[in-house]
Amino acid sequence: MPKILVLNGPNLNLLGRREPEIYGKETLADVEQRLRRWGETAGVKIEMRQSNHEGDLIDWLHEADATADGVILNPGGLTHSSVSLGDAVAGIATPVVEVHISNVFAREPFRAHSHVSRAAIGVISGLGIEGYVLAARALLDRIRREQEKG
Amino acid sequence: MPKILVLNGPNLNLLGRREPEIYGKETLADVEQRLRRWGETAGVKIEMRQSNHEGDLIDWLHEADATADGVILNPGGLTHSSVSLGDAVAGIATPVVEVHISNVFAREPFRAHSHVSRAAIGVISGLGIEGYVLAARALLDRIRREQEKG
Amino acid sequence: MPKILVLNGPNLNLLGRREPEIYGKETLADVEQRLRRWGETAGVKIEMRQSNHEGDLIDWLHEADATADGVILNPGGLTHSSVSLGDAVAGIATPVVEVHISNVFAREPFRAHSHVSRAAIGVISGLGIEGYVLAARALLDRIRREQEKG
Amino acid sequence: MPKILVLNGPNLNLLGRREPEIYGKETLADVEQRLRRWGETAGVKIEMRQSNHEGDLIDWLHEADATADGVILNPGGLTHSSVSLGDAVAGIATPVVEVHISNVFAREPFRAHSHVSRAAIGVISGLGIEGYVLAARALLDRIRREQEKG
Amino acid sequence: MPKILVLNGPNLNLLGRREPEIYGKETLADVEQRLRRWGETAGVKIEMRQSNHEGDLIDWLHEADATADGVILNPGGLTHSSVSLGDAVAGIATPVVEVHISNVFAREPFRAHSHVSRAAIGVISGLGIEGYVLAARALLDRIRREQEKG
Amino acid sequence: MPKILVLNGPNLNLLGRREPEIYGKETLADVEQRLRRWGETAGVKIEMRQSNHEGDLIDWLHEADATADGVILNPGGLTHSSVSLGDAVAGIATPVVEVHISNVFAREPFRAHSHVSRAAIGVISGLGIEGYVLAARALLDRIRREQEKG
Amino acid sequence: MPKILVLNGPNLNLLGRREPEIYGKETLADVEQRLRRWGETAGVKIEMRQSNHEGDLIDWLHEADATADGVILNPGGLTHSSVSLGDAVAGIATPVVEVHISNVFAREPFRAHSHVSRAAIGVISGLGIEGYVLAARALLDRIRREQEKG
Amino acid sequence: MPKILVLNGPNLNLLGRREPEIYGKETLADVEQRLRRWGETAGVKIEMRQSNHEGDLIDWLHEADATADGVILNPGGLTHSSVSLGDAVAGIATPVVEVHISNVFAREPFRAHSHVSRAAIGVISGLGIEGYVLAARALLDRIRREQEKG
Amino acid sequence: MPKILVLNGPNLNLLGRREPEIYGKETLADVEQRLRRWGETAGVKIEMRQSNHEGDLIDWLHEADATADGVILNPGGLTHSSVSLGDAVAGIATPVVEVHISNVFAREPFRAHSHVSRAAIGVISGLGIEGYVLAARALLDRIRREQEKG
Amino acid sequence: MPKILVLNGPNLNLLGRREPEIYGKETLADVEQRLRRWGETAGVKIEMRQSNHEGDLIDWLHEADATADGVILNPGGLTHSSVSLGDAVAGIATPVVEVHISNVFAREPFRAHSHVSRAAIGVISGLGIEGYVLAARALLDRIRREQEKG
Amino acid sequence: MPKILVLNGPNLNLLGRREPEIYGKETLADVEQRLRRWGETAGVKIEMRQSNHEGDLIDWLHEADATADGVILNPGGLTHSSVSLGDAVAGIATPVVEVHISNVFAREPFRAHSHVSRAAIGVISGLGIEGYVLAARALLDRIRREQEKG
Amino acid sequence: MPKILVLNGPNLNLLGRREPEIYGKETLADVEQRLRRWGETAGVKIEMRQSNHEGDLIDWLHEADATADGVILNPGGLTHSSVSLGDAVAGIATPVVEVHISNVFAREPFRAHSHVSRAAIGVISGLGIEGYVLAARALLDRIRREQEKG
Repeated sequence: MPKILVLNGPNLNLLGRREPEIYGKETLADVEQRLRRWGETAGVKIEMRQSNHEGDLIDWLHEADATADGVILNPGGLTHSSVSLGDAVAGIATPVVEVHISNVFAREPFRAHSHVSRAAIGVISGLGIEGYVLAARALLDRIRREQEKG
Repeated sequence: MPKILVLNGPNLNLLGRREPEIYGKETLADVEQRLRRWGETAGVKIEMRQSNHEGDLIDWLHEADATADGVILNPGGLTHSSVSLGDAVAGIATPVVEVHISNVFAREPFRAHSHVSRAAIGVISGLGIEGYVLAARALLDRIRREQEKG
Repeated sequence: MPKILVLNGPNLNLLGRREPEIYGKETLADVEQRLRRWGETAGVKIEMRQSNHEGDLIDWLHEADATADGVILNPGGLTHSSVSLGDAVAGIATPVVEVHISNVFAREPFRAHSHVSRAAIGVISGLGIEGYVLAARALLDRIRREQEKG
Repeated sequence: MPKILVLNGPNLNLLGRREPEIYGKETLADVEQRLRRWGETAGVKIEMRQSNHEGDLIDWLHEADATADGVILNPGGLTHSSVSLGDAVAGIATPVVEVHISNVFAREPFRAHSHVSRAAIGVISGLGIEGYVLAARALLDRIRREQEKG
Repeated sequence: MPKILVLNGPNLNLLGRREPEIYGKETLADVEQRLRRWGETAGVKIEMRQSNHEGDLIDWLHEADATADGVILNPGGLTHSSVSLGDAVAGIATPVVEVHISNVFAREPFRAHSHVSRAAIGVISGLGIEGYVLAARALLDRIRREQEKG
Repeated sequence: MPKILVLNGPNLNLLGRREPEIYGKETLADVEQRLRRWGETAGVKIEMRQSNHEGDLIDWLHEADATADGVILNPGGLTHSSVSLGDAVAGIATPVVEVHISNVFAREPFRAHSHVSRAAIGVISGLGIEGYVLAARALLDRIRREQEKG
Repeated sequence: MPKILVLNGPNLNLLGRREPEIYGKETLADVEQRLRRWGETAGVKIEMRQSNHEGDLIDWLHEADATADGVILNPGGLTHSSVSLGDAVAGIATPVVEVHISNVFAREPFRAHSHVSRAAIGVISGLGIEGYVLAARALLDRIRREQEKG
Repeated sequence: MPKILVLNGPNLNLLGRREPEIYGKETLADVEQRLRRWGETAGVKIEMRQSNHEGDLIDWLHEADATADGVILNPGGLTHSSVSLGDAVAGIATPVVEVHISNVFAREPFRAHSHVSRAAIGVISGLGIEGYVLAARALLDRIRREQEKG
Repeated sequence: MPKILVLNGPNLNLLGRREPEIYGKETLADVEQRLRRWGETAGVKIEMRQSNHEGDLIDWLHEADATADGVILNPGGLTHSSVSLGDAVAGIATPVVEVHISNVFAREPFRAHSHVSRAAIGVISGLGIEGYVLAARALLDRIRREQEKG
Repeated sequence: MPKILVLNGPNLNLLGRREPEIYGKETLADVEQRLRRWGETAGVKIEMRQSNHEGDLIDWLHEADATADGVILNPGGLTHSSVSLGDAVAGIATPVVEVHISNVFAREPFRAHSHVSRAAIGVISGLGIEGYVLAARALLDRIRREQEKG
Repeated sequence: MPKILVLNGPNLNLLGRREPEIYGKETLADVEQRLRRWGETAGVKIEMRQSNHEGDLIDWLHEADATADGVILNPGGLTHSSVSLGDAVAGIATPVVEVHISNVFAREPFRAHSHVSRAAIGVISGLGIEGYVLAARALLDRIRREQEKG
Repeated sequence: MPKILVLNGPNLNLLGRREPEIYGKETLADVEQRLRRWGETAGVKIEMRQSNHEGDLIDWLHEADATADGVILNPGGLTHSSVSLGDAVAGIATPVVEVHISNVFAREPFRAHSHVSRAAIGVISGLGIEGYVLAARALLDRIRREQEKG
């Protein structure tokens, strides 16, 4: 059964509590539950983590290279400041989809640039927590096509 | 049955023919077939159009306000140059999801800024023609939630 | 009887419907009626057109060179993106006044620059649909002074 | 009888004398006479002042809040350098229309940005001294509409 | 007999009439006649079109891919604003030479950047209407060399 | 008894009246009273002035060099535009603390840069009129330390 | 008794040792002692922490939301590079005052911008370690006013 | 006897007192004495003024148009911030030489641009108070050549 | 017989050897031979030089003013860095056409700006060594038209 | 025996595995072995560490101040984003040489700026893992010269 | 007898011939004669050179360090492009005055920045060939003051 | 015996004399002696040259392609201004290491960018004249590895 690792960056533990007019009322636990339910139907193992430490996210991305078939990464504020996170995504073979709950392109100018996008296979932004499920679908679709090729 | 209008901008009629290493080998007709098949299952009417004229896309967006429940817009090169297209998206009530087949954020710097994103509800970039189906799912999800509220 | 051609660019057909907190509740038909009433009093023929196509506006500006004594141009979003529209205004002898209903200088930074202003004889911005009438007065004033000279 | 205060900034006392190929041959006294004549017909009291001191213009704007129904402000070179003048316009309730005799947008790049525009209700640029009368008309129009509401 | 399609963008229909101190007194008809005469000698079929619509130029470039051996493109003001036109040139296999009548590099700063140049095989700027003939020669030279290889 | 001169720049006379959602409802007289009360307890003489004229503020800073032990300067809009005010602060020996009532760093981008900060000993921003008292405390603290050294 | 959490970012553990001509000779322990003494008088509990890890500071800010009445944050070099720290400050309800020992606005250009200021209630810069006490006073003042309202 | 008006801007009254390592130890009175002595020999009447008010300098420049044959202007900090001062220099017929005591081009970047230079006949920078005498010589040289022509 | 001087800047002596995937395999000697052959047919004397010294190219341009009827200049890397070379082209009466073998506009951003273009009569870029012949044709065409006028 | 601490930042644990066409096939263990072998010959103790956490690197730099005679720092992606790492290097007395395996100056523009270089004694870039040995030699050379002085 | 070396950069050999509306009709020989005449009166030996080669100017500046008491440098176009010329001026002890015949600050934007000014003792711009004599006077004045000190 | 050519650019002949607080007291002759001594031990022939002429350095780089096995290039001020020098390094097959004596990245902003780095195999900056020896070692290391392959 394919495995997708879902990594959440700084402040996403506040989800549902922080600026709900931007991020909505659902918590990260709701996201996990939503993804797991989808995973059960789709036959995908979901594992979700969150950290406020850039280093943890990089460690986990490296780890994913050996243990996961795909990664969903919501880098939070590190999106716009961490060259190293982008390098980590570029440095592993496992495909990564970048997800943002709010539409970062419609907010402050400093949120318009992502250090991660240059290395991710794709970006989903502004579609709320549903964006995580769409990213999972895209990864599964890709994993299956890769398997068919191999 | 909800209706989703799929609008494609300049040069997307070349899809499958133009720079296949970037855009893949599938044509716009393949995208349409893929979306229709999904629409039949999901109970959504799909209508797809393409034009190389900015004005046509704006006309169609205005028209969608009265006739469609959601719009998928791949603005092609107009993404980066057309203030008016962004204004058209902002000027209608129908929700619009912006889709790019290639990951525009990983290409030339002038492709990093979208005039449409400030007004779209979300953006899906780099997930190939599968991005259209994900956008349709996101719109359907939203349409249903709106109906439940109403 | 002098003739003034009034050209409106992309999305102005939504006037009264689109973002009324910015653009007000009056429609383009109201603008036309307001201008015609003024024209009847002032002895000026008014003709008004709107298009979402940059090419139409350029075609009409060229046509105006032969058929009108002055042009009022509200270029909509093309104000900020169309070099060609500015070139068209520079390329004709008929005087052009640029009009914006909202105060574009008090909005997003990308609305602060106009490609048309370098070639227009003047700009009226932020005075609502009354700005059209003021522009017509300014043109009439100029047309009469030119006639007196000639 | 409504009162409009007309404030002119640095170097406008040179009008008619300074660079006449840009600013024309009429003096500030001509502008005043032209406005007074219009004011007599329209039932509006006109008062005009000029100073080369930023502080005087700010003092007068504050004063206008209590004594005038509208302000026409030609800030001269302060347009492009005075944050405080913009703050003064934003700080008073009386509506202010910004006027420039020459088309500042068609001149040197440093004249393209106005610190005042963000706070003025509108801008008239490039229509010569006639621009003052158009501004007065726009203010009167607005004063009357406000009175009708009130 | 090889065929070269000559495409002219916005405002080039004004050639000979618009700002003759920059663009000279010859009209687009003169350019066509000049090219045809050269074509008769050189054994090249010349077809010339002009439009003020970006979309028309893109449509014609796509069409050229099947029907012409080379394209001469004078994009007018779209040179500096149309990402889509550059994408169209990049999207077809037929070689395109970009031509400007005036030396765009010696004019306003906003004319210094071309969206088309990144995809054209070459650029000829500032050599008047003779530039069209030079471009035709360069294309013919290239077409012949390609034929020799093939 | 040490003396602190409190200088307020353009538009601060509107305090309590201008944009109260940003600046609060207290007036400059309230600030003065608040500071005097603190001064009586702390044994510090307070003198407060306001002007909309850059030149007055510079004259007063020069004067302070001879007559005051410290200066609190709220430069208003001159913060962002007056090189000369920064030069005046740098040109005197009396220590100057820069105070802003609102958090200028969280407002429009043009308010992010201060010409005064390079020369002031410190900056207090966003702490309301309480910022004046904190600045007075900081100055008193410094004056006493200087006296101890001397 | 209200509680204020004092958070210090990277390299502040070097205080008193690192570049003393910029930061002075007092250590972080001196700052703590100075704050505690003030806290005993003022009836405020002070807790101070330091970390060179961005993630620790974010974790502590989240924790403060539940356990402290105010936060003093000296983000060190993270001031200028950490979007996530600014997001953390924006994401909690507890008020945060940003403190810098040296006047960051008078140093290298890259120190002129703070990612934290947009979310902090205020900023105190350049007033040495006394700035911490001033920040504590400002927070206490605010906590009391909130209590009076509530 | 020709007359040269010498105008000094903000903070130049501090000359000899302010930052002597940059500006030297001589005062403005020394400059005046130095110029008068030269004037007596050269047969030139010298009048010198200083103000910290931009408006005074503009008033004096206008006055100079009628009463002086040349102006030496050291605009102090207004050099870099006052568009109006540059406009005043452009607006009068009397030739103006811009003088800076220190070499402004070798100091902070914000001192590298002068609003006055575009209108002055020349600039002398960094040659200390001797620069005033050189400017006077240059003006006298020009006045005499003009007289010879006339 | 008219004479055209062909000047080649730094590194063009490496032509055919340096980065052949960009510049092709033909050497500068091939260019000269190609031009001479054309010159014999067209009745034009061709003289070609190359130097890696900016000063040599400037000396030769000055010399050309007296001895040549036209200049073809390929400035190599000096295109993007030498203000003086542009000044030399502007300082002579002989017409200069700027030629680049590769399409400099499609390469690194720092190659997008030419200091020479502001003074050259035209630019030919990206058409390989054939560009030299086209430039020679354009010059001959112009020389003949000038002769006809004279 | 002098001791050199070798610190490696984010993603350098992937060395030999990540993008080998840029970074080569040797691992960090190979680097360590290479350095140790050199150290044995040269009489230098080598200690090497790697972390993906900015905070760890800062902690280790502080620690080095007491325990090492020199530091080799390859900051990985933190080079371009971490102000705090630069501050840590500036804050310790132990000399630091910055090393990059690939030539960062020849890659993406965002890799052209280093926050660490302003504080390091020197930089070695692009010389592969040999760069570490060269850095060690440079440090040893400096340590010995310091010892001779002392 | 003190000696002043006068160095002229690229294209100054064209003086009197090149763009006389900017640079006047006098030649470099006239400048030399004018300076020599002044030198005879003032007791200063004048030596003048010109080269279009940056390297010659640097060589001569180095030479001046041993053989001249002052240098007048008109760097021509190298002013705006040569870091090395600025370094040469900084690298020698002999004082250098930078002279420009036209007012470079009132011309194209790329002429607004000088690489030489950061190291020259002063700049004289826009005062025609008289500027050379003023520079010589300033140098002589300085040489004498240095002699008096010594 | 392999040969390394050491090229030094403008002003490096002043080494030991010019700004010794930045560049140290050793002369270029000391550098040569230091390198030769190393060369004798290592079995490498060293040849060193210096010129203030960009063209000489380019000529010598071209020459090196045939006669040397590696080049050490200290381009002096040309580092930051010469596109052509970068092109010359890119145009030859011989490997080039760029060396700077001072840490150019820690100095003025205009020294932060090198035109040479994009083509050099590596950069050594800030390690004094020892940097030359390190560069020689790196080149020798590379030459040997190439020989082993070959």
